[in-house]
Amino acid sequence: MTTFGESHGPAIGCVVDGCPAGLPLAAEEIQTWLDKRRPGQSRFTTQRREPDAVRIISGVFENENGQQVTTGTPICLFIENVDQRSKDYSDIKDKYRPGHADFTYLEKYGVRDYRGGGRSSARETASRVAAGAVARKVMPGVTIRGALVQMGPHKVDRTNWDWEEVGNNPFFCPDAAAASAWEGYLDGVRKAGSSCGAVIEVVASGVPAGLGAPVYGKLDQDIASALMSINAVKGVEIGAGFDAAAWSGEENADEMRMEDGRPVFTSNHAGGVLGGISSGQDVVARFAVKPTSSILAPRKTVDRDGGETEISTKGRHDPCVGIRAVPVGEAMMALVLADHTLRHRGQNG
Amino acid sequence: MTTFGESHGPAIGCVVDGCPAGLPLAAEEIQTWLDKRRPGQSRFTTQRREPDAVRIISGVFENENGQQVTTGTPICLFIENVDQRSKDYSDIKDKYRPGHADFTYLEKYGVRDYRGGGRSSARETASRVAAGAVARKVMPGVTIRGALVQMGPHKVDRTNWDWEEVGNNPFFCPDAAAASAWEGYLDGVRKAGSSCGAVIEVVASGVPAGLGAPVYGKLDQDIASALMSINAVKGVEIGAGFDAAAWSGEENADEMRMEDGRPVFTSNHAGGVLGGISSGQDVVARFAVKPTSSILAPRKTVDRDGGETEISTKGRHDPCVGIRAVPVGEAMMALVLADHTLRHRGQNG
Amino acid sequence: MTTFGESHGPAIGCVVDGCPAGLPLAAEEIQTWLDKRRPGQSRFTTQRREPDAVRIISGVFENENGQQVTTGTPICLFIENVDQRSKDYSDIKDKYRPGHADFTYLEKYGVRDYRGGGRSSARETASRVAAGAVARKVMPGVTIRGALVQMGPHKVDRTNWDWEEVGNNPFFCPDAAAASAWEGYLDGVRKAGSSCGAVIEVVASGVPAGLGAPVYGKLDQDIASALMSINAVKGVEIGAGFDAAAWSGEENADEMRMEDGRPVFTSNHAGGVLGGISSGQDVVARFAVKPTSSILAPRKTVDRDGGETEISTKGRHDPCVGIRAVPVGEAMMALVLADHTLRHRGQNG
Amino acid sequence: MTTFGESHGPAIGCVVDGCPAGLPLAAEEIQTWLDKRRPGQSRFTTQRREPDAVRIISGVFENENGQQVTTGTPICLFIENVDQRSKDYSDIKDKYRPGHADFTYLEKYGVRDYRGGGRSSARETASRVAAGAVARKVMPGVTIRGALVQMGPHKVDRTNWDWEEVGNNPFFCPDAAAASAWEGYLDGVRKAGSSCGAVIEVVASGVPAGLGAPVYGKLDQDIASALMSINAVKGVEIGAGFDAAAWSGEENADEMRMEDGRPVFTSNHAGGVLGGISSGQDVVARFAVKPTSSILAPRKTVDRDGGETEISTKGRHDPCVGIRAVPVGEAMMALVLADHTLRHRGQNG
Repeated sequence: MTTFGESHGPAIGCVVDGCPAGLPLAAEEIQTWLDKRRPGQSRFTTQRREPDAVRIISGVFENENGQQVTTGTPICLFIENVDQRSKDYSDIKDKYRPGHADFTYLEKYGVRDYRGGGRSSARETASRVAAGAVARKVMPGVTIRGALVQMGPHKVDRTNWDWEEVGNNPFFCPDAAAASAWEGYLDGVRKAGSSCGAVIEVVASGVPAGLGAPVYGKLDQDIASALMSINAVKGVEIGAGFDAAAWSGEENADEMRMEDGRPVFTSNHAGGVLGGISSGQDVVARFAVKPTSSILAPRKTVDRDGGETEISTKGRHDPCVGIRAVPVGEAMMALVLADHTLRHRGQNG
Repeated sequence: MTTFGESHGPAIGCVVDGCPAGLPLAAEEIQTWLDKRRPGQSRFTTQRREPDAVRIISGVFENENGQQVTTGTPICLFIENVDQRSKDYSDIKDKYRPGHADFTYLEKYGVRDYRGGGRSSARETASRVAAGAVARKVMPGVTIRGALVQMGPHKVDRTNWDWEEVGNNPFFCPDAAAASAWEGYLDGVRKAGSSCGAVIEVVASGVPAGLGAPVYGKLDQDIASALMSINAVKGVEIGAGFDAAAWSGEENADEMRMEDGRPVFTSNHAGGVLGGISSGQDVVARFAVKPTSSILAPRKTVDRDGGETEISTKGRHDPCVGIRAVPVGEAMMALVLADHTLRHRGQNG
Repeated sequence: MTTFGESHGPAIGCVVDGCPAGLPLAAEEIQTWLDKRRPGQSRFTTQRREPDAVRIISGVFENENGQQVTTGTPICLFIENVDQRSKDYSDIKDKYRPGHADFTYLEKYGVRDYRGGGRSSARETASRVAAGAVARKVMPGVTIRGALVQMGPHKVDRTNWDWEEVGNNPFFCPDAAAASAWEGYLDGVRKAGSSCGAVIEVVASGVPAGLGAPVYGKLDQDIASALMSINAVKGVEIGAGFDAAAWSGEENADEMRMEDGRPVFTSNHAGGVLGGISSGQDVVARFAVKPTSSILAPRKTVDRDGGETEISTKGRHDPCVGIRAVPVGEAMMALVLADHTLRHRGQNG
Repeated sequence: MTTFGESHGPAIGCVVDGCPAGLPLAAEEIQTWLDKRRPGQSRFTTQRREPDAVRIISGVFENENGQQVTTGTPICLFIENVDQRSKDYSDIKDKYRPGHADFTYLEKYGVRDYRGGGRSSARETASRVAAGAVARKVMPGVTIRGALVQMGPHKVDRTNWDWEEVGNNPFFCPDAAAASAWEGYLDGVRKAGSSCGAVIEVVASGVPAGLGAPVYGKLDQDIASALMSINAVKGVEIGAGFDAAAWSGEENADEMRMEDGRPVFTSNHAGGVLGGISSGQDVVARFAVKPTSSILAPRKTVDRDGGETEISTKGRHDPCVGIRAVPVGEAMMALVLADHTLRHRGQNG
């Protein structure tokens, strides 16, 4: 997958190459996933109005039955930027916003598209969600679901976990009680012009044993890479993750028994990956999203001319950008698993 | 970098391609780093006796001054396996050891080298340390240091942090008081035939601003991938990492001031990476290592024939494999930074 | 570079990643090169009417002086397909056209976009020309020129070679006398509904010594790969090429002398590449294009149902598709050299 | 595949990654192919005495039946250099040998291993032959054979073609009459201290339809890349190759008929590749090898200090290095086809 596009350029999009032929694919299906990520759906996400309507430019054609299917050639997905609201960028044009990539882009390239964050805008993640929709098609037996498990300092109660609840609140929260409490919390954050971080958990069920590789191309390595590549992500863990560091070998071991003639594990601290290869259990990953850097409170910074100054961000921003990261995390998991599904089939038939 | 070799095969090693020419490189220098990782140096690591003597097979030749330097061609580093102790493998040959890759390798490949873990043995990481020694040469101005910051449930006290202490104890611990306490703790773990996990922090100083890329090939993404690819690693974080999820935008923001005519940051929650590109601050990463899976206490498992059974591991194992992961983490950081140094120079001159 | 798009889909295009920042780039400049390849410019090329108007979707922004420059992020170039003439495809939908990829696409993918050749249409090469225009920007000191040196069985007389002539005839022919003769020849071919092959030579001047690599990533290897990837190309040679097979070592040796204090070669049988690395001489490559497969004369073939039949192609086709391959060959040479320029700078500073 | 090693270093070798597991592989089988390429087998090849004995360092282990099979992990093949004859290199140390990579390596890297050509020595091709032996295992139904079809200006008579003859003469010549004539010709070349070029044809039979890809990753593109990467190769063609440029569309078309219920082609000008994808016909490629650059006749050159001088090469050199390129060409074809076999299986199952 290759993506392109800036927040306020004419369009963003991606090219997915190497996709198997013959998979039914319609723009409407991709749109379903994009709509989950789309801004402006509740008061808790940015009020930028982007329809995020996706067009399939290539790689899909009708088969003998008149159904639109992938042809095996590169699939280009194209999303036009509509709400490029004309505004005054003089402030962010010259000042480095703390937590943003303004300073590092300029240091690296000497020039940057400062409008709405340009290439570093979270808007780029729409391309990932679109590509993820294609990736899901590659693995019809795999279900990938994501949930917000921590908002700011508030974690869900895992004993309340109910995947059905995820669609019932604006936070992708699997715990109805937590969702209810978060509403008040996030309203406070939002009204204060502040922001908070989040932790997202992504679970892939139905992944067959055998995906991955012993050393380079480990499945967990590629998941870590994919999730860490999402904007604002600062940490990734698989299975028990950092908790495992505090455990003993006895506690951490996932023991095995036979069930219906098949070996099964009696726990899943490994998160479905052993030695870089999937074990057939659920693949479980979590990632931490830092608080949105664009906040109302003025922060000290410097400008391009070396002057010390302050900056404060007004406007349409997510108080908790981690919410919309849920479908993005799902998409990245889907892309990694689809890639490894094809690579495994290549090597091992 | 490509590595090869199994724990009990004739040798392990790696090929480093794309290295700049003209860098002085002697086997002795590489050996210095390998010796840090070498087993059998204290009672807290496996008693396997491997000299880990490295040979440079290619890619180095004398320059006009008679000094051994890299020639720009592939560098093959070769480490013979000496202590392939003949033993009875009948137990692990047919039983799946919990926490090990036995089951997943067989599911994927249908065959595996079961001797000492084969390809999934931590022994493979010696190749990484050797390659890392070459990578350090590429960036003479960068210093990469690692430290154990948590052993089992016991964390260091960061106010005691002293890099000098890292070399004064068998744990690479930067806190003398913690090191002292860990000694008794780990003796207990070892005598009980148990094991514990660990967290390692790696810090790269002197990294110039500008390494990395906006979307694919982000610096933090590649660090996450590299660290997660180390055996037994279950989590990776950059800068404030998972802690940032609980913070507000105000707390998380790294503000900027001018100092000696250069923009500087007044904190480093970002861990030296903004938008996937280095900011010139220290690059800070941490990774969690699970407890060694080979323990004395019998664990429930199954065998290849589908029989339910138990397994208990006797023999030469690290009670805390995270200790020897410190030089490995440093090496992986070095490899990622060297790679990005060359890529940045390629793109931006 | 990644390209996408089918002949009769909504658009074709490409994404160029890794381009240095700060290079002035305007759509008009890219258009200049596209116009050289554009169909319908003489009676000797297909009468399909495509404006081939390119849009820059991303990766370019104004710098401090208000000039449009590359930003270092992925550059997406987008060319809409305008002349998707509605026609009856029932004939080529089910019959395999000899010399075309109809049969192999179906064998591989089980489905194909049969309209105008779909992905295998020469139309895809417009994306390459657009990307090549970006590549040229990376190497301001390098001049890349192509010429048709053989049309059907008729070769140019090299003693007449004049680069200025290339722009004076519809064949990119450097020999005015040959161009004149070819006109009558190709009219005959065209009127007979037949076609002919061609040989194109591409010469890059100003290439510094040192581009390439000793074994994998040889400069000549990558040129061969790039040129062979152009539609209808069946052979590639560097320097003396196949002729060198018939020579003695004495004849083939490019001897060296000093000139203005610099080593120079007194001949260039090597075509500017020695041991996979550029020597500072002109890089010279040639490639053979087979005759256009779409011809009026009926050819024996079979259909998807296994019936033996015939096919004859009417319509808008190039009698000598090699003519329009000239700018495509230039673009591919530019892409390879730009890539190696950046890689060389990465490895060797 | 990654190779490493210099002509006069301690060893050369390669690492083959991504090989399917469970393929029987013994060093003896690899040795069989290496022996075909081994020097010193007739008076027509260099008299350097290298046993070229290959060791399998990793990636192979016994399966349940006690048979040595691939395990799916990286296979390292290691060939020690034995005949590193001590000699006086003062001549080639400072002078640039025409046709060799001496000048370009120094321009690129500033340092080189000048002993026996170092990395640019044809000795590196032994690694390729070893890797090719592994690649053949991946495609048990495919037969890959190579033959010398032109030595200096003398071509074989294709009506005499007999694959059985290839093993009956020291030239891999399929035409007994030509082989007999070449003997006298090459004796003359050899005694004169001169050299000649050659053309090699490689034919792969049993390749299923469907290998390759429409645009990047075309099968013929990768074959061209692989063959051009062999030392001294200056041209590559597929099927009719350069001859096709002189033909009409009618002559070039490979017509189709039904045979035993399967579509078949009545000719193979395409060389088994259409639109970058294999057609099920024999894949046919040819490559031109320039005359050995090391010759007795003095050639004009310059030295590192900028002095004009001459160089003449005495010693153990192949008068026609193209002969030993035959097994190398076979190996490269095997590697490309094996790679595409796995990639095709990955994408299309």
